Amino acid sequence: MSPNDGTVAAIGEFALIQAVTEGRRQPASTLLGPGDDAAVVAAPDGRVVATTDVLVQGVHFRLDWSSPEQVGRKAVAVNLSDVAAMGAKPTTVLVGFACPPDLPATVVTELMNGMWAEAGRAGIGVSGGDMVSADQLVISVTALGDLEDREPVTRSGARPGDVLAVSGRLGWAAAGLAVLRRGFRSPVGVVNAQRCPEPPYEAGPRAALAGATAMIDISDGLLADLGHIASASGVGLDVQTTDLEVSTRLREVGTALGADPLRWVLTGGEDHALAATFPPFGDLPEGWRRIGTVTMPDSGITVDGKEYGHEGGWEHWR
Amino acid sequence: MSPNDGTVAAIGEFALIQAVTEGRRQPASTLLGPGDDAAVVAAPDGRVVATTDVLVQGVHFRLDWSSPEQVGRKAVAVNLSDVAAMGAKPTTVLVGFACPPDLPATVVTELMNGMWAEAGRAGIGVSGGDMVSADQLVISVTALGDLEDREPVTRSGARPGDVLAVSGRLGWAAAGLAVLRRGFRSPVGVVNAQRCPEPPYEAGPRAALAGATAMIDISDGLLADLGHIASASGVGLDVQTTDLEVSTRLREVGTALGADPLRWVLTGGEDHALAATFPPFGDLPEGWRRIGTVTMPDSGITVDGKEYGHEGGWEHWR
Repeated sequence: MSPNDGTVAAIGEFALIQAVTEGRRQPASTLLGPGDDAAVVAAPDGRVVATTDVLVQGVHFRLDWSSPEQVGRKAVAVNLSDVAAMGAKPTTVLVGFACPPDLPATVVTELMNGMWAEAGRAGIGVSGGDMVSADQLVISVTALGDLEDREPVTRSGARPGDVLAVSGRLGWAAAGLAVLRRGFRSPVGVVNAQRCPEPPYEAGPRAALAGATAMIDISDGLLADLGHIASASGVGLDVQTTDLEVSTRLREVGTALGADPLRWVLTGGEDHALAATFPPFGDLPEGWRRIGTVTMPDSGITVDGKEYGHEGGWEHWR
Repeated sequence: MSPNDGTVAAIGEFALIQAVTEGRRQPASTLLGPGDDAAVVAAPDGRVVATTDVLVQGVHFRLDWSSPEQVGRKAVAVNLSDVAAMGAKPTTVLVGFACPPDLPATVVTELMNGMWAEAGRAGIGVSGGDMVSADQLVISVTALGDLEDREPVTRSGARPGDVLAVSGRLGWAAAGLAVLRRGFRSPVGVVNAQRCPEPPYEAGPRAALAGATAMIDISDGLLADLGHIASASGVGLDVQTTDLEVSTRLREVGTALGADPLRWVLTGGEDHALAATFPPFGDLPEGWRRIGTVTMPDSGITVDGKEYGHEGGWEHWR
C-alpha cells in the first residue's frame, strides 16, 4: 500500500516508537527504559512476579465502543490485576503491539497514553515493548511485580472454614456489555466499567499482609474464577447472596433491560475485582468485604448452599 | 463456527493450556510456574532484564516455509537474544498466544514444543502465558534475565578506538530467505537459518565479563543495527570486509542465485548474532571475532572506510 499521511505506515516504526516513548517520566524502579535491547527493572525482593495477557480487537475490545485511551488502560489494568492477585506490587509493564499499516498513528499514541495513565495509577511506567505489522490490532502486555518479602498468595491455600471475600466491583462490566450490545451508550457508569476496569491494585498486597490463604483476579466471572480456587485448593466455596452488594445502579439497568442483575454479579467477567480467602478469625483488611465461606472439598461452587443454575465464565474459541 | 475435531475450538482454551503445560520440567529459577494468576521467577541480582518481541504469521514466519516447532523456537530465540545482548543470562519466558479457532491444536502443541526446546537451549522454561482468539496467528514472547551482579551492557558505551566484534552467524538467514523466495528448500543450512536463528546466548554474558563497552542483538541487519550503537554512543563504526567471514556456503548460494553474499552479511536480518565493542587492548572473549573499529562521531557507518551503497535493515509498515 502507499503510505497515507497520519497512518502508522506513513510515520514508520522507529518514528512512532520515538513518539510514544519520548518525554515519559519513568519511575525510579525503571533502571533502564525503552531504547535498548531490553529494559532493566528493579526487583528488590530477589523474585519477580510476571504475567502476560493479550487483547485482540473485536474479541476483547471494540474501537466503536471504547476510545483508544480506554483500550490502552484496559490492556494494562487486566495485567496489573494479575500481579495484585499474587499479593505483589506492580513494578513495570512491557507492551507488544501489532497493528495494520493503515491504522491512524493517533490511535497508537492515544492507546499508549491510556497505558501510561493506568500504569501511573499503580505508580509505574511502560519500560519497553515491540511494534509490528499485522492484519488486526493485537495488544500483548506483560506486567512485572515485586513481592516485598511476602510469600506469593496462590490459588491453592484456601481451607474449609476460611472466609471468602472480594475487593472491587462485580457485575458492572457485564451490565455495561449488555447496554452496549443493545446499542445504548448509557448509563455511563456501567458502560465505562465495561470499557475499562478499575481493579483495586492495593487490595492485593493488603490481603497478603492480612494473611490471605488464596487469591484470584476475577476476569471470567465470580463463580467461574472461584472454581479455580476450589480446584487448586481442593475445597468448595459458598457465596451468600445476602452478603453480595447489588448496587442500585445495577438493579436499574437490570430492570431497564429485563435482565437479572444478580446474574451479572455472579457470572459477569471483566471487572477484575479480587477474590480471596482469609482465616476465619480476624478482621478483613480495608477495602475487602465478606461474601461467603470456604466449604468442604466435595461441595463445589454453591450460591446460598445450592448449585447455581446458569452457565458462567468465558472460554476462548468456544 | 461449529467446532471440528482437533481444532483449538474443539479442544477449548483450558484443556489446551493444560495440554501444553502439563509434564514440563521447570528449572529451579521458576519458583511458581503456569496455573496461577502470575508466575514467580528468581531474580537473584535484585534487577530484572525484560524484553518483548511479537511475531506475526505472514510477516515474521510462514507455516508453509517453517514447521510450527521452528516457529516456536524462533519466537523464543529472538527474545533470549535481546536478553543476551544486555549481558544477562535468561531466566524465563512468558508466551502471549493469539490464533484462529480453526487452527489445528497440534500446531499449538508443536509450537509450544519448539518454545520449550529453545528455552531448554538456554537452560530455562516457559513460566506463563495467555491464549486467546484472533483472526491471525500472533505470538508475543516476553523474556526475563538476570545480570548476575554485572552492569547491563547498553548501546551507548562505545568509544572511538574500541574494537568492533561479532559473535554468531551473519547473512545466513537472508540467504535462506532468498532461497525460499525462489521456491527452493535447499541448501538446508541457510534455509534452516532463516526458519530459526541460533543466537549465541552465552556470548552475551561473556562479552559483559570481558568489559564490552556496547552491545546489540543483530535483528535487522549488521549495518542497520550498528547504526543504533552509533547514535546511542555518539560514535561512528567502520566494518572491515577483510575481517568478515563470508562462508563457502554463502558464496555458493550467492553464485547459484546471482546475488552478492557480502550484501547478505552486511544487511541481512534475522540471524540474531551479537555485535559488541571492546576496549582496544586485550583479547576478545571466546566465540567473538573482530570485524572493525569504532570511529569518530561524524564518520557514520562505513564499510572499509566508505559509505555502503545499499539500503539495509527492516522497518515495520514500510
